[in-house]
Amino acid sequence: MSRAAHQWSDIVRARRIGIDTYREPVIFLAQSSPVCRSEGWESQARVDVSHEGRSIAATLSVVTDSLLELDEAGLSDAAWKLLGVHEGDMIRLSHAAPVESLRFVRAKVYGGSVPASGLEAIVRDIVDGRYSDIELAAFITAFAGPHADGAEALALTRAMIDTGERLYWGKPTIVDKHCVGGLPGNRTSLIVVPIVAACGLTIPKTSSRAITSPAGTADAMETVAPIELSLDDMRRVVEREGGCIVWGGAVKLAPADDIIISVERPLDFDSVTQLVASVLAKKAAAGSTHVVIDVPVGPTAKVRTSEAAAALEGTMTHVAQHIGLSIRVSRTDGSQPVGRGIGPALEARDALAVLRNAANAPADLRDRALALAGIAIEMGGAAPAGAGCARARELLASGAALAKFEAICAAQGGMREPPVAPLTDTIQATHAGTIAAIDNRRLARAAKLAGAPRAPSAGVELHAPIGTRVERGQPLFTLHAETPGELDYARRYLRVNPHILDLEER
Amino acid sequence: MSRAAHQWSDIVRARRIGIDTYREPVIFLAQSSPVCRSEGWESQARVDVSHEGRSIAATLSVVTDSLLELDEAGLSDAAWKLLGVHEGDMIRLSHAAPVESLRFVRAKVYGGSVPASGLEAIVRDIVDGRYSDIELAAFITAFAGPHADGAEALALTRAMIDTGERLYWGKPTIVDKHCVGGLPGNRTSLIVVPIVAACGLTIPKTSSRAITSPAGTADAMETVAPIELSLDDMRRVVEREGGCIVWGGAVKLAPADDIIISVERPLDFDSVTQLVASVLAKKAAAGSTHVVIDVPVGPTAKVRTSEAAAALEGTMTHVAQHIGLSIRVSRTDGSQPVGRGIGPALEARDALAVLRNAANAPADLRDRALALAGIAIEMGGAAPAGAGCARARELLASGAALAKFEAICAAQGGMREPPVAPLTDTIQATHAGTIAAIDNRRLARAAKLAGAPRAPSAGVELHAPIGTRVERGQPLFTLHAETPGELDYARRYLRVNPHILDLEER
Repeated sequence: MSRAAHQWSDIVRARRIGIDTYREPVIFLAQSSPVCRSEGWESQARVDVSHEGRSIAATLSVVTDSLLELDEAGLSDAAWKLLGVHEGDMIRLSHAAPVESLRFVRAKVYGGSVPASGLEAIVRDIVDGRYSDIELAAFITAFAGPHADGAEALALTRAMIDTGERLYWGKPTIVDKHCVGGLPGNRTSLIVVPIVAACGLTIPKTSSRAITSPAGTADAMETVAPIELSLDDMRRVVEREGGCIVWGGAVKLAPADDIIISVERPLDFDSVTQLVASVLAKKAAAGSTHVVIDVPVGPTAKVRTSEAAAALEGTMTHVAQHIGLSIRVSRTDGSQPVGRGIGPALEARDALAVLRNAANAPADLRDRALALAGIAIEMGGAAPAGAGCARARELLASGAALAKFEAICAAQGGMREPPVAPLTDTIQATHAGTIAAIDNRRLARAAKLAGAPRAPSAGVELHAPIGTRVERGQPLFTLHAETPGELDYARRYLRVNPHILDLEER
Repeated sequence: MSRAAHQWSDIVRARRIGIDTYREPVIFLAQSSPVCRSEGWESQARVDVSHEGRSIAATLSVVTDSLLELDEAGLSDAAWKLLGVHEGDMIRLSHAAPVESLRFVRAKVYGGSVPASGLEAIVRDIVDGRYSDIELAAFITAFAGPHADGAEALALTRAMIDTGERLYWGKPTIVDKHCVGGLPGNRTSLIVVPIVAACGLTIPKTSSRAITSPAGTADAMETVAPIELSLDDMRRVVEREGGCIVWGGAVKLAPADDIIISVERPLDFDSVTQLVASVLAKKAAAGSTHVVIDVPVGPTAKVRTSEAAAALEGTMTHVAQHIGLSIRVSRTDGSQPVGRGIGPALEARDALAVLRNAANAPADLRDRALALAGIAIEMGGAAPAGAGCARARELLASGAALAKFEAICAAQGGMREPPVAPLTDTIQATHAGTIAAIDNRRLARAAKLAGAPRAPSAGVELHAPIGTRVERGQPLFTLHAETPGELDYARRYLRVNPHILDLEER
């Protein structure tokens, strides 16, 4: 910034106003503040906020004078963290420069194709916090749709890799596993990782917390071991045990993806380009070389038809080849939840039951995990083609997988048993019949109302999957909660939504 | 809403929190509030807020407990006005239902075409405040681009007309005039309307305030007469004088347009579909039958090339035909500002100078106004083809146009002279030369820093348009301001931006 431009700015005192605006940084100024009046700023203006060489773009909200002093600026939680200021620090405000890379978004909207340099510029600006939420929405919309341009998907993936940290493991083969998502209870990672690591392969797994679901893999893992590891600690765990299951948010791999997802999710667009870039960029940044990708296909899953799965697989394979990643896509049944538990601890208990070879372990979860682990083992060269699944089964049956899981947990900071909810309420069949369908969305909602994922032991335990024949009075599912208020809240929800399980009379 | 759904909601006390979030309604809840905890709500959640049969969708911002009581909800200014509550009213919160019409936006993104019923549903939801800003951005992006689908443009126009008030004048011919915008100082409406009305035609003109520019037609008109008229008062003025120039924001014509523009403008997309729908829906809703449309074409105008102008004209003509509107597009020079003043009162003074046949009246503004008025007169049948401009010239020269303008002002509530700024500062040429170019954007910015449009007499008065030969010390332009602080602010801006007028040495 030139000296002249420095003169052209305003200095105010920073205050953390205590407003959570989610991802978007927002700055609050009193309507009579000199800076607002002289700059002619109004709500929605984009303001450049800088402090000690750090600079962010924030969206302005003008507030009544009683909320703020005239010489101070309130910062939303996101702005506060991004700028790294302390209470009372003096910050400098100026007009945010127009976001240059938006011209590539416009070019795409007008039907042109965007060069790799354009996608690089866009992703760089996104990571630097230069895109407002509506600009992000425009970017996502412009590049959404079912027909991916392979070159654009590749360029976006590369740009996402290049704008974050990248791990190197000093080994020729690093295995990984990913699920494109959308299926409640599908916690195979907690089983696949220890099996693959027990096989002598390296599998540094980063996972996410729930955003709209009752639990993410990171939430479930957190009920048995610490997951917020630094990059150094993650490296130490993987070097010692060959694998880890940590929270990806703590290690800054492909950070553009997290920002894009924060706006993409509420829009609920299916975008092959963004899905491919999101998955492959994270894996490549994590240093993986061989990745098995679980694609559940079903009417309410993320991928709904086999044609869509084929299109996704085609683009994914194209991009993977060009960034030096070997992938195998495994299409799985996406028609109903996996396992019994919905909620962090309940899902961890399902996975532990499988690892412990418990008699009541959910077979569907075990079989899916073994199939994925088998592919990973073959890809990593630890078993010949066709023999991976049997090898995985051996490692599970022998207790080697459980021992490896316990060792990984110990290395991550110590293993514990998942908590058990103090309060439960079991919902019983009001008549005899067969479970014909399950409303997964409403079941997940009941789990969230009961407290998941914030309350780790809360959620829903399903006793009767599709096809189960039940008698009157037989348990259908059990609510788990940590407080009476939350249990009552979930109960009230069930009273107004009585048909979450469709019980067909015989 | 069913009784069951009623049970499933939370009632809290409304408080106007004093935060201006621009157009988007935002609701603030304390992080420990029972409703936040039990609903599992986090920032960015969409919440349905209802009060006495009225219901809006708002975006949630979670705040620290010190900002709000646990049993109250803070409402942003937009939410407060939209819901029409009073301090302490009890309001009901529940999860906002998913916006059904977004599936049509998704269909468009996936390459499908959207039926008229889909665009109707989208526009209805937008008017009802069901679209968040990111959803609006997705809609705008999906339908943007230079190649309009005629059927979609028509359906969007019809939907915009049908979701607002519509005026009927009981006459077969209602004339109107519109400029697609982008040119500072282009205040022809203040001249065209009285000429056309003096001709015996009916021209009920609604105009807009500045959003990002130093003045809109409504701002300029407001310096000489009241413009915030009710629909009834507007009707009374038009019935008496044959014309009016009022603020369109006070009469609810095609309200979807205002909402869409609030997000479209920061994105800065050129969208033929939306431009056509925006212009024609407002005019049809105002009851117009014959409209002359000013399309300035120039490198920094909204329409940049004659090809773009032709495409716009084609779609506009197609849609106009199908909604029973007769239009004539007039392509005009869009390369530099019109008249001398930039700012509400300064622009009104230019228009008054023309109406008063003053010797120093800006010829460019007069000639443009006469050309447009001539077309309007011919379209309205008050002069044969080719004779409209001469008729307009007569009405201006004879003082009939001025008399009609004064009568319109009187009918709108009384005419006054535009205010004169108490403080001015004239910038002089530092050397002899010729004005080679003018940075309109920076000149407009200086006018805004001097106080325009909030301070009506503030702005910039240009003395040397492109091509003017000046001597050292000759005035280039004059800053006008109402306070020393604002004048100083504009001055400081000029010090760091000295080359707004490009003065080529001879």
